[in-house]
Amino acid sequence: MMHGRSLIAGQPIPGAGETFQARSPLDNRVLEPDFLVAGAQDVDSALRQAGTAFEVFRQTTGEQRAALLEHIAEEIVALGDELLTRAHLETGLPLARLTGERARTVNQLKLFAQIVREGSWVDARIDHAAPNRQPAPKPDLRRMLVPLGPVVVFGSSNFPLAFSAAGGDTASALATGNPVIVKAHSGHPGTAELVATAVCRAVGACGLPGGVFSMLHGAGKIIGLALVRHPLTRAVGFTGSRAAGRALFDAAGARPDPIPVFAEMSSLNPVFLLPGAVKEHGARIAEGLSGSVTLGVGQFCTKPGLIFGLQNAEFDQFQQALARVLEAVAPATMLHSAICEAYHDGSRRAAAASGVTVLARSAAAAQPTGTQGEATILRTDLGTFRTNPELAEEVFGPFAILISIRTLGEFEEVARSLEGQLTATVHGTVEDLSQAGGLLRLLEQKAGRLIINGFPTGVEVCPSMHHGGPFPATTDARFTSVGTAALYRFVRPVCYQDFPAALLPEALRDANPLHLWRMVDGERVAP
Amino acid sequence: MMHGRSLIAGQPIPGAGETFQARSPLDNRVLEPDFLVAGAQDVDSALRQAGTAFEVFRQTTGEQRAALLEHIAEEIVALGDELLTRAHLETGLPLARLTGERARTVNQLKLFAQIVREGSWVDARIDHAAPNRQPAPKPDLRRMLVPLGPVVVFGSSNFPLAFSAAGGDTASALATGNPVIVKAHSGHPGTAELVATAVCRAVGACGLPGGVFSMLHGAGKIIGLALVRHPLTRAVGFTGSRAAGRALFDAAGARPDPIPVFAEMSSLNPVFLLPGAVKEHGARIAEGLSGSVTLGVGQFCTKPGLIFGLQNAEFDQFQQALARVLEAVAPATMLHSAICEAYHDGSRRAAAASGVTVLARSAAAAQPTGTQGEATILRTDLGTFRTNPELAEEVFGPFAILISIRTLGEFEEVARSLEGQLTATVHGTVEDLSQAGGLLRLLEQKAGRLIINGFPTGVEVCPSMHHGGPFPATTDARFTSVGTAALYRFVRPVCYQDFPAALLPEALRDANPLHLWRMVDGERVAP
Repeated sequence: MMHGRSLIAGQPIPGAGETFQARSPLDNRVLEPDFLVAGAQDVDSALRQAGTAFEVFRQTTGEQRAALLEHIAEEIVALGDELLTRAHLETGLPLARLTGERARTVNQLKLFAQIVREGSWVDARIDHAAPNRQPAPKPDLRRMLVPLGPVVVFGSSNFPLAFSAAGGDTASALATGNPVIVKAHSGHPGTAELVATAVCRAVGACGLPGGVFSMLHGAGKIIGLALVRHPLTRAVGFTGSRAAGRALFDAAGARPDPIPVFAEMSSLNPVFLLPGAVKEHGARIAEGLSGSVTLGVGQFCTKPGLIFGLQNAEFDQFQQALARVLEAVAPATMLHSAICEAYHDGSRRAAAASGVTVLARSAAAAQPTGTQGEATILRTDLGTFRTNPELAEEVFGPFAILISIRTLGEFEEVARSLEGQLTATVHGTVEDLSQAGGLLRLLEQKAGRLIINGFPTGVEVCPSMHHGGPFPATTDARFTSVGTAALYRFVRPVCYQDFPAALLPEALRDANPLHLWRMVDGERVAP
Repeated sequence: MMHGRSLIAGQPIPGAGETFQARSPLDNRVLEPDFLVAGAQDVDSALRQAGTAFEVFRQTTGEQRAALLEHIAEEIVALGDELLTRAHLETGLPLARLTGERARTVNQLKLFAQIVREGSWVDARIDHAAPNRQPAPKPDLRRMLVPLGPVVVFGSSNFPLAFSAAGGDTASALATGNPVIVKAHSGHPGTAELVATAVCRAVGACGLPGGVFSMLHGAGKIIGLALVRHPLTRAVGFTGSRAAGRALFDAAGARPDPIPVFAEMSSLNPVFLLPGAVKEHGARIAEGLSGSVTLGVGQFCTKPGLIFGLQNAEFDQFQQALARVLEAVAPATMLHSAICEAYHDGSRRAAAASGVTVLARSAAAAQPTGTQGEATILRTDLGTFRTNPELAEEVFGPFAILISIRTLGEFEEVARSLEGQLTATVHGTVEDLSQAGGLLRLLEQKAGRLIINGFPTGVEVCPSMHHGGPFPATTDARFTSVGTAALYRFVRPVCYQDFPAALLPEALRDANPLHLWRMVDGERVAP
């Protein structure tokens, strides 16, 4: 039933002639159908349709956009097992995980629907005129957030549902009135087609112009860059590698009119094990860490990749415990063969550095598909870590490096030398933590989320979530790609001076017809 | 009494050997003393001191930072007439204007003091844990805004007080806990020294580390770029030309770790005169426009530079009225000779285009200082404007181009073809405006502030102000450089997961000891 074509404004298009195939990492079999690569003309056509649709879409009410998001959620659910099965075949992710990810995707859409229906997210502000003020009269000024325009979203390999065609980026952009053009990830093009079809159905059912949503197949380096460079593109959402994210960021910055790129790229998610915690519940930490390192075959951006601990007898015991639980983790199928190869290359390269040894590896052998990754934890000391900068590069997969330090002061030294991170984790007893103020303050400057006595995988979708950190974790540490604040990526303020009431957007009228929380003459005012 | 030296952490430094002089645009006389250019080592030293000071400064309370801002305001006032006289000599701006600008500068500091004392700007959010949630427990998550780190601020030529050493950028950065390094504008180095000395006194009086504030002299292309490229720099504030702003933006983007640049650069501030308004009160509009074009010798970023009107008999009358009031505007001293030269070049080049004529020019002759600019308004039609892209380049000075169009529909065509703008203005009667919805919706996509029946100069400092527009008006349309929201340029969110209460920042503790407005479990909660 799948056609393998890109969808522009709801219509399958012939593409530019080239085709590619999806291959299942479960058994390396080619999956039907062939997919047709979009061309430069298709990029232009999708953006033009988006630009035209924007004129209508930007003026929709919160209620209309909430209805769209809810329709999308329903249409995704209506895809039923076909979606889960296809995603399983294309990504090798277990059905249970995909079922959970679908729930997250649907809940995310519904959460954004609630927020735009309530409406206060527009941050409406009103400052009334003071015509008699001296030395000069004060005009009437009102301000609210408005959408940017067409947003290009890159599907991610590791979240075929929650961060792909109708994932968090798409939901945030649509919620705030921006048309979306998805560059489907070539690892799961069939999943992308199914979800994109569901979105197009919802757009149609809501009576919105088709250009509100398009989905294109093709290579990131070709149509991806063309999408970022197109004059009508106003912003970009991306989750993927540091090299690809940087290339998109550079292309967007080199435009005659630079546009924002929200790329979530690379994070080692360091974990600091303070000695009291290691002593008191080392075994529990070992179990949790092993689980976090290997969850989803280590294919999460928040996977802990560096583990620092103070060298002593308890830390030795902890390492033995960690080795035991990790060895019991079976090798598992990774997202596709290229990711698995990159994982093996990266983990081998790190293990080959002088002074680095293997602490533990999955005891069972990988199946001969060439797509299974064995869990691996390496071990080294701080000196070796410092002199081998490649050990501080992300290895995407079930992999971590454990680094022993010799003095408590070295925890802070390490923290100071880190690049930007999505997360940083500290395990400590009350006693440990009472002396860790300096470490925590340093980590606050390096990471977007700090965790105490927990594990970084598992990213909650809520107002307090911040999933974004200093470069290279993301290209813009001020914005999050997960949680309700994610929608602030795709809007900008407009100020209205001395507008007659009838010409003001409803959100800014004195009578507050939308019942919003607002700031009026400097005071927060309830609806 | 002036030493002519850069100030690093409160200490005057010898610099790198080169010197330069300030010259008064009033009479071309060289002003004492010589100023010593800072070198690459000084850049490094200022940033290192800022980096060290940040460790302390980022942990100050809102009350401490409010006290700093208020101290700075007091120290600036205490400079008394010396400051005004020096600024007058260096910039040629009238004393009355500078007195007003000083008031604005001081009020701006006090306003930010109020905001950080009250504290809710940190946007504190709390989502409590749900340990029994299925299928997975929900952790405790809390989020607030934290400072970025050392901010480089470029003094602007046209606001020697309100957008220079202790202007809006510096105030926003300090308010939110970021050390500041000012690159003094070479047009008013003495003014910069006086203000910087006042800031350093305040930093000392508040017991803060000197590295919280430094001020360097030198050329933008040399130490300016070095400041932007320094690894410790975390953000940049700039007001100036499109070429310089773009150069800083590109340098920041090319860093191994790109940083945000908030450059406010170039805007034509188009004005649309709808026919009913021209007919009903053309003379009043002519007077207001002439005043807005020539205010401060046209040296405002919000100066209206393009005026569109429908060709008819009333528009002819309007042009005659505009010519009359403009001719009566005397030539006046511009900020410095280079700005005056660029003004004359730009206005001559525009006037030389085929199809462009001079509508009006100051009747009186400029004094022979070579620093006075005559008010000039050119006139052309839409065809000529379209075929001469250089007519859509900003000419900084008392200059505008009036463009007659032939059909109402052309207003929208023009709006569609504009680059990004700080402001866009529409004059219309109730009848005019009832048909201008399409035009207003287009302008909303092009500008940061829309004005009806007013004039764009005069930028109010309040919560609803938005002074920022799509490129090239600014490099980041999502942020404002004027108004209380300006402080959001220099902060980013951090999320705290499962933190023991004692380790949480006060803003995020359940008891709300700082009495902040917060979002708790998705609801806005009053203090």
